[in-house]
Amino acid sequence: MLTMQDALARLTAYWTEQGCLTVQPMNTEVGAGTLNPATFLRVLGPEPWRVVYVEPSVRPDDSRYGENPNRLQTHTQLQVILKPDPGNPQELYLGSLEALGIDVKAHDVRFVEDNWASPALGAWGLGWEVWLDGLEITQFTYFQQAGGINLEPVSVEITYGIERIIMALQDKTHFKEIEYAPGISYGEVFGQGEYEMSRYYLDDADVAANRQLLELYAGEAQRLIDAGLPVPAHTYVLKCSQAFNVLDARGAVSTADRAAEFARMRRLAGDVARLWEARRDELNHPLGLVEPLPPARPVSLPAEKTQPRTLAFEIGTEELPPSEARAALTYVEKAVTDGLAATRLTHDEVRVFATPRRLVAVVGSVAARETDSVRVVRGPKLAAAYAPDGSPTKALEGFLRGHGITAAEVEQSDFNGVRHVTVSRHEAGGAAAEVLAPLLAKVVTGLRGAKNMRWNDPQLSYSRPIRWLTALWGDDVIPVAVGTMAAGRTTRVLRTAEQPEVEVASAETFMETLAINGIVADPEDRQELIVTGAQDSVYPDGRVDVAGEAALIDQITYLVEAPTPLLGTFDESYLTLPDAVLTTVMRKHQRYLPVRSAEDGSLLPMFVTVANGPVDLELVRAGNEAVLRARYEDAAFFYRADRQVPLPAMRSRLERLTFTDKLGSMADRAARISAVAADLAGPLGLLTPTLERASQLVKFDLGSQLVTEMTSLAGVLARDYAENAGETPAVAQAIYETELPRNTGDRLPASVPGALLSIADRLDLIAGLAATVGLPTGSSDPFALRRAFLGLIAVHRAQPALAGLSLTDGLTFAAARQPVVVSEDVLLSARDFLAKRLEQVLVEEGRPVDRVRAVLPHHARPSVADKLLAQLDSLVLDPDFVRVAEALQRCRRIVPAGTPDSYDESVLVEPAELRLHEAVVAVAAEVSALEEPDLVRFTEVVRRLAVPLADFFVDVFVMDENPVLRAARLGLLATVRDLGAGLLDWSELRL
Amino acid sequence: MLTMQDALARLTAYWTEQGCLTVQPMNTEVGAGTLNPATFLRVLGPEPWRVVYVEPSVRPDDSRYGENPNRLQTHTQLQVILKPDPGNPQELYLGSLEALGIDVKAHDVRFVEDNWASPALGAWGLGWEVWLDGLEITQFTYFQQAGGINLEPVSVEITYGIERIIMALQDKTHFKEIEYAPGISYGEVFGQGEYEMSRYYLDDADVAANRQLLELYAGEAQRLIDAGLPVPAHTYVLKCSQAFNVLDARGAVSTADRAAEFARMRRLAGDVARLWEARRDELNHPLGLVEPLPPARPVSLPAEKTQPRTLAFEIGTEELPPSEARAALTYVEKAVTDGLAATRLTHDEVRVFATPRRLVAVVGSVAARETDSVRVVRGPKLAAAYAPDGSPTKALEGFLRGHGITAAEVEQSDFNGVRHVTVSRHEAGGAAAEVLAPLLAKVVTGLRGAKNMRWNDPQLSYSRPIRWLTALWGDDVIPVAVGTMAAGRTTRVLRTAEQPEVEVASAETFMETLAINGIVADPEDRQELIVTGAQDSVYPDGRVDVAGEAALIDQITYLVEAPTPLLGTFDESYLTLPDAVLTTVMRKHQRYLPVRSAEDGSLLPMFVTVANGPVDLELVRAGNEAVLRARYEDAAFFYRADRQVPLPAMRSRLERLTFTDKLGSMADRAARISAVAADLAGPLGLLTPTLERASQLVKFDLGSQLVTEMTSLAGVLARDYAENAGETPAVAQAIYETELPRNTGDRLPASVPGALLSIADRLDLIAGLAATVGLPTGSSDPFALRRAFLGLIAVHRAQPALAGLSLTDGLTFAAARQPVVVSEDVLLSARDFLAKRLEQVLVEEGRPVDRVRAVLPHHARPSVADKLLAQLDSLVLDPDFVRVAEALQRCRRIVPAGTPDSYDESVLVEPAELRLHEAVVAVAAEVSALEEPDLVRFTEVVRRLAVPLADFFVDVFVMDENPVLRAARLGLLATVRDLGAGLLDWSELRL
Repeated sequence: MLTMQDALARLTAYWTEQGCLTVQPMNTEVGAGTLNPATFLRVLGPEPWRVVYVEPSVRPDDSRYGENPNRLQTHTQLQVILKPDPGNPQELYLGSLEALGIDVKAHDVRFVEDNWASPALGAWGLGWEVWLDGLEITQFTYFQQAGGINLEPVSVEITYGIERIIMALQDKTHFKEIEYAPGISYGEVFGQGEYEMSRYYLDDADVAANRQLLELYAGEAQRLIDAGLPVPAHTYVLKCSQAFNVLDARGAVSTADRAAEFARMRRLAGDVARLWEARRDELNHPLGLVEPLPPARPVSLPAEKTQPRTLAFEIGTEELPPSEARAALTYVEKAVTDGLAATRLTHDEVRVFATPRRLVAVVGSVAARETDSVRVVRGPKLAAAYAPDGSPTKALEGFLRGHGITAAEVEQSDFNGVRHVTVSRHEAGGAAAEVLAPLLAKVVTGLRGAKNMRWNDPQLSYSRPIRWLTALWGDDVIPVAVGTMAAGRTTRVLRTAEQPEVEVASAETFMETLAINGIVADPEDRQELIVTGAQDSVYPDGRVDVAGEAALIDQITYLVEAPTPLLGTFDESYLTLPDAVLTTVMRKHQRYLPVRSAEDGSLLPMFVTVANGPVDLELVRAGNEAVLRARYEDAAFFYRADRQVPLPAMRSRLERLTFTDKLGSMADRAARISAVAADLAGPLGLLTPTLERASQLVKFDLGSQLVTEMTSLAGVLARDYAENAGETPAVAQAIYETELPRNTGDRLPASVPGALLSIADRLDLIAGLAATVGLPTGSSDPFALRRAFLGLIAVHRAQPALAGLSLTDGLTFAAARQPVVVSEDVLLSARDFLAKRLEQVLVEEGRPVDRVRAVLPHHARPSVADKLLAQLDSLVLDPDFVRVAEALQRCRRIVPAGTPDSYDESVLVEPAELRLHEAVVAVAAEVSALEEPDLVRFTEVVRRLAVPLADFFVDVFVMDENPVLRAARLGLLATVRDLGAGLLDWSELRL
Repeated sequence: MLTMQDALARLTAYWTEQGCLTVQPMNTEVGAGTLNPATFLRVLGPEPWRVVYVEPSVRPDDSRYGENPNRLQTHTQLQVILKPDPGNPQELYLGSLEALGIDVKAHDVRFVEDNWASPALGAWGLGWEVWLDGLEITQFTYFQQAGGINLEPVSVEITYGIERIIMALQDKTHFKEIEYAPGISYGEVFGQGEYEMSRYYLDDADVAANRQLLELYAGEAQRLIDAGLPVPAHTYVLKCSQAFNVLDARGAVSTADRAAEFARMRRLAGDVARLWEARRDELNHPLGLVEPLPPARPVSLPAEKTQPRTLAFEIGTEELPPSEARAALTYVEKAVTDGLAATRLTHDEVRVFATPRRLVAVVGSVAARETDSVRVVRGPKLAAAYAPDGSPTKALEGFLRGHGITAAEVEQSDFNGVRHVTVSRHEAGGAAAEVLAPLLAKVVTGLRGAKNMRWNDPQLSYSRPIRWLTALWGDDVIPVAVGTMAAGRTTRVLRTAEQPEVEVASAETFMETLAINGIVADPEDRQELIVTGAQDSVYPDGRVDVAGEAALIDQITYLVEAPTPLLGTFDESYLTLPDAVLTTVMRKHQRYLPVRSAEDGSLLPMFVTVANGPVDLELVRAGNEAVLRARYEDAAFFYRADRQVPLPAMRSRLERLTFTDKLGSMADRAARISAVAADLAGPLGLLTPTLERASQLVKFDLGSQLVTEMTSLAGVLARDYAENAGETPAVAQAIYETELPRNTGDRLPASVPGALLSIADRLDLIAGLAATVGLPTGSSDPFALRRAFLGLIAVHRAQPALAGLSLTDGLTFAAARQPVVVSEDVLLSARDFLAKRLEQVLVEEGRPVDRVRAVLPHHARPSVADKLLAQLDSLVLDPDFVRVAEALQRCRRIVPAGTPDSYDESVLVEPAELRLHEAVVAVAAEVSALEEPDLVRFTEVVRRLAVPLADFFVDVFVMDENPVLRAARLGLLATVRDLGAGLLDWSELRL
């Protein structure tokens, strides 16, 4: 059996053979091999560097007393840095797996999008998790930035998770069972340390001491930066990081602390990085400089042909993220189509395909040459071409000489009404290869991803490295050259194929060549294979919810080139876990399709995974099953443990979770939510025992282990644990609904207590954070307040029982409950922010802007706005409403702002105005009797003013010379105007 | 070329093959691999453990900015632990050198005594430095104690210094030039780190911050101990250690700090160790238990022989320290001789021999059997043996029965004058093998070293492990069995021999067998080989000072079994270094014999080293030369640098060196020495410009780099640097002499200013430390105060010009200069301590105790005591002196204590008393005119009292009835008594 120490030795030896230095782990605690100066500092600057080292990586937060089978406070990374990118790092990596004795042909080894960023280090890169039969065994990253500095050249970072790999290879279910050395288990060697360090990190580390350590370390780091010493400064940045992680594991870090600490570390790390670069410059780069690769030379032009042939163009990449592959599909189609349109090459349909590793365009019957054309070249004006004697002027002579023609060959044409001499030049079309080469090159250079990276090609930038180009027109290679790549006739198929590189005879056989080699280039074909394969494998008892899993299936389609669906099972006992737990693990973590009973839709203890290529099915199935088992075991471990804990005990753990520095613990926050919910419910008569009990428990599941692990399950697990603990379904549901909606489009609270708690939750969040951190600005919304506002709006709109609830009143209640002062200014800004969000939501739903703005005075009660908008939909077709509305707007225009809605009726004289007066008096009484904003009822009442108003405007001159009369008339109109006040912002309405 | 990373990989692979686990370096800074829990914790308790790991070891104090060719703040150790001792760890170790490609047959690989102790860890062990051609490449230790706990089983610790080994193998002269990986040098990889971390440790580390860190770490360590968590506690102990080392490198640790900090760390480490053991007990020893080796079974007894044969007995050991081998020689000779004497085996001379690896006893003509003997066994008293009727009593019957004899066979004998019945038993002698076996076993078990250790033999304990026994009598193996060893006929010769184990045919050929195999067992032969070999190799121009180097030659004699002297040279340019530097390096560090010019005795640029066995001379010479070059280069580097520094600048560096917490810096101390010297010199009129200038500079060389490196050269280098800086030779000499004597028997100051400064130095040391730390107690003398007192005495005695100087007055001056209060009590104790030391010194010189005690009142002026003792030597032969002395003692006895030395002469009546009175008056005037204590002059004067006194005692009855007369007579005698007061303590003198 390959022992763990052998594995480390073999990997080290393998990478040493690839020219890597071997160095030692960092001699201060680090969370990852990346932090070792052999990575963090060495990826900076222009010097080459290849290194391999083991790094025991300390993650205090992962402490589990050695009990959890897969989680350790110190796990062993093996870290490789290749600088510059050697051009074939994935292939080198697969070689390292073979060095471990892993048959990469039999296993399903995949590169699954995973981008890496460390805000604390100002570092990021693009790359993948490497999956071995569904198990993440390696992080593979093209480092783009470190310490905020763009990296040039780019380094490849390969980080192996050794315990995981060994557990898989040794078929162990607990890390302690790993055979570390012959006859000696991991547990025997490291078990006690795991337990004791877990105790330290979780229970016994002194918070005050570690706070002091953090400050002392930061102080030393800063002093050393000031002294121009990046190496010791870096060491102290690492010590900061460890002290911070210890505090975090002890639950002593608030969100605000975290942000501040990350900012400080980012700043320090950036300073260290810049200093290091400067020092290496001063030292004149002891390890030399990386030479950029030279640009490629295209193949020579093929001999001319005459018959139309197919064009096949392939851009070979390393594994693209699914979304990028899909986007590229659209781009390539347009780029090729437009490109061809700009030539004079005739051709048939342009078809494009994409897999994770290739973008393919195939165009039928592309002509061998462009059609010829005639170009008319303009010469001097006719008037200036000939002397009065008709002989050519010097200007014409020059023109003739320039084109090598005689005066006899000259023609004439009008240009903008002026006659010029011209000459017609016959232009032959270009040969296909000649014309296509620059066109295709442009397709490549035009590729852009949502996130782009650089690799060893000095000229290109894209979502992932482009590694080869295949460009054929018929039998000929088109001489495309981009960056360091020259197109040829070689394509690459599965890396694990007997022959991973294949010559393609001609463009016509291109797709066939791929197909023969197992590559299903067409996404539709792949999807078909996946769906039918999945359904077949579970038929007849199970089914895959193809519609429901559409997004996942789409993703899987772009994760494989040669889909090999296979059915796995898991132990039925795990079905006792909540559905959401099971499916979240399957979908989010493993990209497995859940399988449901064809009968009742309940989950079956199976899953469909889709491997890539002709793997050993049994081996891959077993591997994936083991991974899922480990994940479920993990979840079950926490689930069982959580269900042992009484809810109040779990809830009391919230006291140890800091919410923010100024706003106290999560327990404080839960208490506020509870109080605000009561504030809201009281006036509405909605105070119920359900609400009361749910309020006592709200958020309790944040104190559970499983939610700590899988935060997306907050609420879901609360419901489960609450029911398990004997709470009523209504209470459980209300606690669950407190968390709704979790994102835009998520389900909304169905129960009134749930809706009240949901709103109270968000009001508390907004009131507290607006006062302490501020409302979201364009780019900064660290606490997702925007989402909270949208949630408020959505919940209010969805729950008719809350129509009477004013969110702005609620905000005032929530403000009063905060441990900090929430100023009136802050509340005003928050109301304004709410109004703006409501406007935005309604407009995005397709409501006319004018009507949205008209109802916006009701932003405190979004459901009222909804009702009014709905009424407007029909009322705008009602001539009476239009008339009334216009009249109200007219009154508004005529009456100066500030005019009071009272008048001395005794001075009115004209019959029309007296009639209006009478009508207004009658209507006003009825209008003021309307309790709730209701445009229909309002219109029913006010439509009686339509005729009197019309008459008034015809018969009465408002601006009479007699000021008393004028005042009375204006007062009358102001009264009309104010009839609709508070119902709509009438001025916004466009009729 | 073997790169450094290859070397690490090869050693790791080699030890893994020997069953070692591979673990990672510690992820917090450690000063040595020993501190890694894989050593410090795992050597505790009964579980087996074999491990190999690399440990980058941080020694802030060794920081040299990467400039020094051999000194690094972080060097790379490779650490191996074998628990239990496998029985052949040295052989396994040599295998590891072969794994590195080192031909151990061609090189001179030696195990040179080096015991290891870490007071801060409560840990110690015995073992060796391993030398490769004179280069220390490995520390090899049998761990005996850790955390204050005795280790059972014992672990073998092997620590390789990788950089050194690689520099030797790659023939590099600077660590930066090491080829770390193919084409990449050590300097390229680690050079910047060396520089920057040196900057941190030497210049930029914040002292206050590191002090705080130290306290925080110690606090966490203690808390974790209290929480019962040894693993994290140990981590914090390590962090304490690093913080302390940083402070130390910054010169911020006083001697008192150091002692306190070591005590704290020792306590913490001890607690951690005990906790670890307890936890492993609780965990039931996951790695199992080490089974102790079974006792050996001796070979069977040989058939009986008749002729006398030689006895050869060999105790095979691992390399004994020279002093232990010498001591064992004496022990074995006595043990064998005494042992044989207790047998009835006749034999010839007992000869014993010793080498580092064997103790041999050879005894000629040991009889085949013991001679027979007759033993008389005592029976009952005759009186009780027979009844009155002459028949045997029951007692006699029992006796007869017991011996199976009849009454007729009974004899009689007297025992203490009482007649008993007896029986004569004829006892046959034992066969040689039978008799010798227990005798020889007892020789082995009786071996004791000055320091003893345990290894894998559960029953034995000795200076180093005993690994084999060879015991032959003639052709027969004597069935000796001790512990796990049974003697045989196999001896071991050089480990590098073709056949390291050799069968010995017979005892008679034993020595020959050794000789044939190159082992020179007789130390005298070896010494002869060394001396003649050395002289031959340097003849005729050079010579080795055999007499002067006797101690070194004696040591070398016991460092080799097969001496191979060889001559090496070094570059003449190094001869510009002071002699003391060159020879200290040669003798102390390398055990090389310096070579001097046969003409003028000046050092020649060569040395003689003595290899062991038939090595490749050229290779070994080159290796040794390289080692010496490196050491001299090191010294020259510092020497050159030091000589660039103006003396005041160097002196000012003393401000950064803490002397002790309470007594300030070394600069403070130097200032006090200077002031005290002036205090002493003033009254004696010895204030000279030389003294003044020397005082200004005193101790300045403690600020030099070379003295920091080689503290034994303090003073020597001061003289050199001072002369180089243009000081007068007298000033330079005085500064040098301040440090004298450096130990007992060392030379003493020759000049008066030197002597004054030397005394001032010691007075300051004593006054300050006696007040703050206390005077030495039996076992504790951390500041070597005892030596300071002895120095005071020696200097005073040697310098006649200082005869008038009172050391106790000096102590008072020095006390007044201290920054702390030195109480009268402390001063009294110090005076008393001085007196006791003087007594001890004089007695040890062979002076009679009574005379020493008699002169002890002059302890403040030891030279006075000397003078008086010298005078006593002749005076005790002078009858007058004896008479006077006896008279004085008689007066003392007669006159009650407290009687005043005055009397009313008018009441005297007897002629004898009147004559005495007159004589006393005359003598008293002369005695009081004697300025200095001088027994000769005193005797000359006082001898005039001899006759009057004799007469007085004959004629006068002192205790007259008349009280007035009695008082006068007693007063007269008191006056006589007091004539000698202050000169001697007459009462002590035995005449």
